[in-house]
This record gives sequence, C-alpha cells and structure tokens, in this order.
Amino acid sequence: MTTGTMRTGAATGAAGEDTRSRLLATALRLFTEHGAEGTSLQMIADALGVTKAAVYYHFKTKDEITEAVAEPGLRELAAVVEEAATFRRRGARIDHLLTGFVDIVVRHRALVALFSSDPGVARAIEKTLHGEERFEKRLIALLAGPEPDTSTLVAAHVALAGIALAGGAPALADLDDESLREALLAVGRRLMGRPRPRA
Amino acid sequence: MTTGTMRTGAATGAAGEDTRSRLLATALRLFTEHGAEGTSLQMIADALGVTKAAVYYHFKTKDEITEAVAEPGLRELAAVVEEAATFRRRGARIDHLLTGFVDIVVRHRALVALFSSDPGVARAIEKTLHGEERFEKRLIALLAGPEPDTSTLVAAHVALAGIALAGGAPALADLDDESLREALLAVGRRLMGRPRPRA
Repeated sequence: MTTGTMRTGAATGAAGEDTRSRLLATALRLFTEHGAEGTSLQMIADALGVTKAAVYYHFKTKDEITEAVAEPGLRELAAVVEEAATFRRRGARIDHLLTGFVDIVVRHRALVALFSSDPGVARAIEKTLHGEERFEKRLIALLAGPEPDTSTLVAAHVALAGIALAGGAPALADLDDESLREALLAVGRRLMGRPRPRA
Repeated sequence: MTTGTMRTGAATGAAGEDTRSRLLATALRLFTEHGAEGTSLQMIADALGVTKAAVYYHFKTKDEITEAVAEPGLRELAAVVEEAATFRRRGARIDHLLTGFVDIVVRHRALVALFSSDPGVARAIEKTLHGEERFEKRLIALLAGPEPDTSTLVAAHVALAGIALAGGAPALADLDDESLREALLAVGRRLMGRPRPRA
C-alpha cells in the first residue's frame, strides 16, 4: 500500500495542477481508505483545505466524482481496444491488447483495486461505459478471435479478469510498477499462447 | 443463464428435500435474479409458498440466509486446502488444489457469480470465512510455494482470481459443467507450469 499512497500523495502535491485534478487525486485516496460510500463531499473538501462549495463548483454529486476519477483509465482502455481492432494479424492484435491492458491496470492500480472491491465505484464505472457488458464482449472477442473454441474463450476470460484482479490485489501492492507489468504481461501471453517476449 | 436457472429450478423441486435446503436454493435463485439487497424475506416466503414466519423459523436475518447459502462451497474449499497442504510434492499439491478449486467454482457457479457481483453476498461470505484475507493468503501460499519469485506469485493470483471470475461469468454460463471444468483446469495448469493432463 505504501507505493500507492506515495503515488497519490505526490500527485496531490504537484505544483501547477489545477483544483479539479487535485480534487480527483484526493477523492481516489479517500475512496481507497474509506470506500466510496464512506467518503463524503465534506471529507474531500476538508482534505483539500477548501470549502464544500468549492467542491460543488466542480462536481454536484459523489457519483460525478467517481465517474471522473475512473474516466482517464477507461478512455485509455477504449483507445487500446480501438487500436487493437485495426491489426489484421491475430498475434499482433493480442500483443497490442495485452500490453495496453496490463499497462493501464498497473498505472491505475489504486482505481482497479477500488473497482474490484467497491460496489459504488463499480456502478459508476459501468455507467460511464454505457453498457459495460458490450465493452467486455468486445475485449474478449478481440482477444479470443472469431469463433473461438472453448479453451481459448475461457483463457481470454481468465486473462482479463485475472490480470485486473491481480493488478489491484492488496497482496501485490508492494511490487513496483515495472515488475508487476512484466509479470502480468508474461502471464497474459502464456494464457493466450503467445511466445515469450525477447529478454 | 438458462442452464443456471434450470439447475436451481430442478434443485428446488426435488422431492425429499427439507424446507431448509429448499429455502436456500430458492434464496440463491432470487439473489441471482434480484441481488441479495433486492430480495426480501417476504419474497423468499412467497416463492416457497410459505409464510414469512416459516422462513423466520429457520433464519432470523437475510445475512444468515446468505451465509448459509455460501457455507457448503466454503466448507468444501477449506477441505481442499487442508488436503492440499498434506502433499509433500509441490506438483501434487498444485494439482490437488487446482482440481478441487475448479470443481467447486464450477459446481457453485451461480454462487460464485453472485459473490463477484453482489456486495451483500461478498460481505456475508467474508464474515463466514472469519478473515478472508488469511484464507486467500493460505491458498496463494500453497499454489505458489514457499518464497515464490514474482512471476510465480503473480501467476497464482491470476489463476485463482481468473478461475473464480471466469467460472461465474454470465458470458460462459451456457457452457456445460464438464467443458467449463476442463477448460478452467487446463488454464490453471498452464499458468502454474504444470504439464497438460493425459487425454
């Protein structure tokens, strides 16, 4: 948990950031500590040293904050999916998807952990995705390919769910980003039958 | 979803079952349809064709019902973990753990799906496990072995989380038990570096 807290703390204190992004970084930290349900707009205001009115100026409800916290990661994921879909060779498509997915999970692991454990955050993210199920289907379809056999389909599900959950697992929070990224990518490649990356 | 509903429906109607197990099967079906939060004791009573007092006779709160619904699967899992710990050879330990874990996930997939998606059910199960984190640590430790390197540790996390989530995934609900079991076990073995089972 130390690395996660340090990352958030550093982001919160960085000079030149506007109130909105400081607010979002603070909200994510408080959500992680108290859950989204256990965090009030007042707590966010207090942690920022501003009035509740200042928070209201940016966000009217906590759900709006949760959606805004999740938005960058989701936008990146959507971009990776679109890019992957442009590759004609299945291997290249899988490689692009796995590399991008793992990278997003690792860089946003505090958020991923919240998504796995906090129903409020999960609901907000699903709302942002406007039909999360179709998005997940698209990811699986790109990874497993057209008309996959059962074992490939199941491997794709295990890869995506496993990478996301392991990426956010408190037990792996002490791993630095690079080690986690490398290990998750290796696992994903093994699952999807891709050769080991060159050392 | 069809197979899941059929399984639950058949279990509910089986002759010779006592009220308690009919009640639990009905509760699981209603939890799946409406979520644990969206299911009242009255709804369970109505679906069973009994009075609310009859439900109260067995369970005082919905949390007690949720814990009782989850209890058989959790007891089986605890037994698999204890058995696996008795194997001296790491390969045999992994094989026993994966086979047992996959089998429990597949046979209880309606419950596993609920656990992944319903915060009320997840809370009740964690309460039953009396410190779920330690239990998960034990599972991971048995699977990854003593002092695992990063890649083995991450693979163990991906295997357990991925198998559980894929096993409960609505998108895989149409797979029959045997196909799902075989595919999940193959994936788990591949992740933990075990040879393919003989055909």
